Amino acid sequence: MEAGAYERFEEKKLDPEWLKAFKEEGERKKAAKEKQPDERIEESVSATIQATVRSVRVHSKVSFLNLSDGSLAGDSTIQAVLRNSVTLKEAEGKILSPGAAVRLTGKLQASRGKGQQLDFVINSGSVVAGCDAARHPFLSTSFEPSTSLARKNAHLRTQIPSFAATLRLRARLEAAMASYLDGKGYTQVRPPIMTSSDCEGGGEVFQVVEPKSKKDKDMASAGTAATPTYLTVSSQLHLEALMLGLGRVYTFTPAFRAEDSATNRHLREFWMCEVEMPTMSDSAASELQEVIVIAEESIKAGARAALGIASGNEEAQVARQDAQYLYAGVEGKRLDDLERYIDQPWARMTYGDAIETLQRHHVGNNGSSTPPPAWGHDLSSEQERFLAEQVAQGPVFVTDYPAHLKPFYMREGEDAEGRRIARCFDLLVPGLGELVGGSLREDNIAVLKRKQQEAKGNRDDRAEALSSSSALNAWYVDSLRSSGMPPHGGFGIGMERLVAWLANRESVRDVSAFPRVGRSSAAAISEAGARWQY
Amino acid sequence: MEAGAYERFEEKKLDPEWLKAFKEEGERKKAAKEKQPDERIEESVSATIQATVRSVRVHSKVSFLNLSDGSLAGDSTIQAVLRNSVTLKEAEGKILSPGAAVRLTGKLQASRGKGQQLDFVINSGSVVAGCDAARHPFLSTSFEPSTSLARKNAHLRTQIPSFAATLRLRARLEAAMASYLDGKGYTQVRPPIMTSSDCEGGGEVFQVVEPKSKKDKDMASAGTAATPTYLTVSSQLHLEALMLGLGRVYTFTPAFRAEDSATNRHLREFWMCEVEMPTMSDSAASELQEVIVIAEESIKAGARAALGIASGNEEAQVARQDAQYLYAGVEGKRLDDLERYIDQPWARMTYGDAIETLQRHHVGNNGSSTPPPAWGHDLSSEQERFLAEQVAQGPVFVTDYPAHLKPFYMREGEDAEGRRIARCFDLLVPGLGELVGGSLREDNIAVLKRKQQEAKGNRDDRAEALSSSSALNAWYVDSLRSSGMPPHGGFGIGMERLVAWLANRESVRDVSAFPRVGRSSAAAISEAGARWQY
Repeated sequence: MEAGAYERFEEKKLDPEWLKAFKEEGERKKAAKEKQPDERIEESVSATIQATVRSVRVHSKVSFLNLSDGSLAGDSTIQAVLRNSVTLKEAEGKILSPGAAVRLTGKLQASRGKGQQLDFVINSGSVVAGCDAARHPFLSTSFEPSTSLARKNAHLRTQIPSFAATLRLRARLEAAMASYLDGKGYTQVRPPIMTSSDCEGGGEVFQVVEPKSKKDKDMASAGTAATPTYLTVSSQLHLEALMLGLGRVYTFTPAFRAEDSATNRHLREFWMCEVEMPTMSDSAASELQEVIVIAEESIKAGARAALGIASGNEEAQVARQDAQYLYAGVEGKRLDDLERYIDQPWARMTYGDAIETLQRHHVGNNGSSTPPPAWGHDLSSEQERFLAEQVAQGPVFVTDYPAHLKPFYMREGEDAEGRRIARCFDLLVPGLGELVGGSLREDNIAVLKRKQQEAKGNRDDRAEALSSSSALNAWYVDSLRSSGMPPHGGFGIGMERLVAWLANRESVRDVSAFPRVGRSSAAAISEAGARWQY
Repeated sequence: MEAGAYERFEEKKLDPEWLKAFKEEGERKKAAKEKQPDERIEESVSATIQATVRSVRVHSKVSFLNLSDGSLAGDSTIQAVLRNSVTLKEAEGKILSPGAAVRLTGKLQASRGKGQQLDFVINSGSVVAGCDAARHPFLSTSFEPSTSLARKNAHLRTQIPSFAATLRLRARLEAAMASYLDGKGYTQVRPPIMTSSDCEGGGEVFQVVEPKSKKDKDMASAGTAATPTYLTVSSQLHLEALMLGLGRVYTFTPAFRAEDSATNRHLREFWMCEVEMPTMSDSAASELQEVIVIAEESIKAGARAALGIASGNEEAQVARQDAQYLYAGVEGKRLDDLERYIDQPWARMTYGDAIETLQRHHVGNNGSSTPPPAWGHDLSSEQERFLAEQVAQGPVFVTDYPAHLKPFYMREGEDAEGRRIARCFDLLVPGLGELVGGSLREDNIAVLKRKQQEAKGNRDDRAEALSSSSALNAWYVDSLRSSGMPPHGGFGIGMERLVAWLANRESVRDVSAFPRVGRSSAAAISEAGARWQY
């Protein structure tokens, strides 16, 4: 057990005096030990800690309690020694057992056992919260339930070491990405969640209404009758407006899709890191590279912190332990692969070259009715993974998709063969497929309106009505585009996908605190016995 | 104009070479000037910059363009010199005028004018985006429109220097609060936005539905028929679940209230910083202080960064300039007051003492039907401000409100007079009133269920149905409270209120990027001529 753990515990007591004393004592003893290496060092600094009991081993003279509190990396615990002469205070419903929370006063002492540097020897203490073994779904698995059992009990999942490690990894990732962007002069902003604009034009939006009450018998729209209100599917349109005056902007924000997909990559509610920035190169290709560089660098900066690569400070060491725990027992050295990806420059490839490559390798879409690779068709998930895993052998930015495959707001261009393309990119990564989508934005009012017209017929009438609505055109197309808006572009990163990829989790459902899935998935879970409604 | 501005501009070109050359050149010339103070120093480093033209002054031989790009503090600009011998490239709709965006190549040179250290002398350039003067609502006001005109055109507001400065202040505030909490061992988490639980029990929730489409004719609930889905009013209940295994947690997250309030303090969609933490003192009063300390310290850490107090680094200087700009021309030295508040320890006072004090001062609720101060009644906004402004002369934590005024999840206790109180606090601040609400949480299952029963009748039937729903009881009350959940507490900070308070803004509508107000306010704005639907 590392000293850091005690420091984290101690902070809960908000008592810097103890921490200082412990550090000084440690330094003094370390110096003494260097002088006389054979002498046994007795630690004797007092502390009060509060933690969950993960297991209890009862011996003839003493019991050993393994403790954790969410601040220790991986599945590491503190061992507390409870001599028979010491009795913890208990009460009705607060009995010492695995899963109970205890508050203990005692002292640090050099361990007599193997593999642990320090024990916590208890002088006194009490059980502050009991755990009902008959009720707790994870207790019989020693807090290591199956993925399926874990997903059915989302409110208890942070008690599972691998889930807690995943959420800590996620927090480190997000903080480091924000820090990278702050350092590059980006301003974090908060675009709206409720909106009247459907950015992607896919029509997969949730609508927001005011519910019935005694006072108000009718189900009323949260907007006015003329302007129904939806949950945002992407904050990009609003970010463009914020970019207008602020320059470089970004946000971490929730997004929503009323899809019924039951895959490992889809949630109805998820978080995105979205970035919007002015570009200032002389060619569209170079402008797109300006955007791609920020996507690549921000993800790499986040990944380094999340995996505890980079500096050897204490924080990075804890991050490292969490990451290693998440990959423990995994064959094929996936953590090494990830580190290699983070070190290497990420490849660039046009959609046209990607199609040719796939044709050369005869990569169709096994067992589905999708035609073999051909210019003009979207890439299948299998094809995306082939490009990353087999061709690029790492993350790859695929640029310049056919214009008709992409939303109306992406800037239009022509490739060398004169085909209409979008100045866009998808980032494809091994083992996952699409992780990021980005593009330059169309600034030409006439082109934007033509593309909205062309998009008609590709969609159901509702989606079309949304994306070509006069409301959206008024502010997003006509007003913004005639107000000195500089050339610009941006991208959106699906945070749950990125976390799942980095943390070696099978599904986005295993990295979201309270995942919301489509009705098919929900029904499947419900049939399998889930009781909870969050 | 400070050199930092050019560096920020330059970063947009992603060209570190130029930046390095400029810095070295600057150092060399500074050294030369120290040796020979009278010699005129000619700056001559080349650069390409992109920015918005805020104004154009035409003289006989040259024109002066004042430029800004969102990275300069306050309303400061860069002055670019356009000699008559140089012509900028223009195109249809891209004419040099105020509001247009230009891309310029040139060099830095010692200014011949007063008050500016450096000019940017243009060698060549082009107008990359025009501004239609007939359409732009702020142009006739030189980007300084009235608050009312600004609010009516939310998508253009970042072009207003005071609004851009407010959003930058907000970003600095949030980053510093997150950094403070990270440093104290808190993990940032992402609780759900869509939920079946109504935390506050007020019934002011938006409902989420799946809209009609060709494929699906019926308006369907986003959940199942049995479990309608709402937008969260507070993430606290879910944060408690995340605290269970992770210990200290926090989030910056949107929250929603279907209120129709048209005050300067209410939005239907807003952001909160919410914190949840285990507590480990021996008395409830001390536990509450553990929570209060984190609220006080996190806000102070954020405010210091937001106002550019603290260290004298370059970042803090820019923050300082923004803050001073936001308070320019304000009488009564409000910025000095704020700094004094941030330096002083914040007062604590029980609700009981607060009522006695208000009675002594005869502070009623002017012009309303609310009775004069008496134990058991909620504090009016006027009374809250009196306590902060007149009694504490600074922010004050008022603790231990009568239990029946507060939600069912707050831990119950008794005061010295044996009255039933909630172990809670509100933070009241001068000029605003309530900014933060927090409490210890009730861990006793029987007490939680009794309080839910008692709350019946105080509310309309819908709210009651929500908060005492068996769904909420199943996971939040029964399961969490029998799973070793340690004693804990937390709080929520209304971020828009905090930003408005720090940035000297009249209303939360002036700090939210796209504020969503109740139907009454929306109708008022609409009648006054707003056209936009975001």
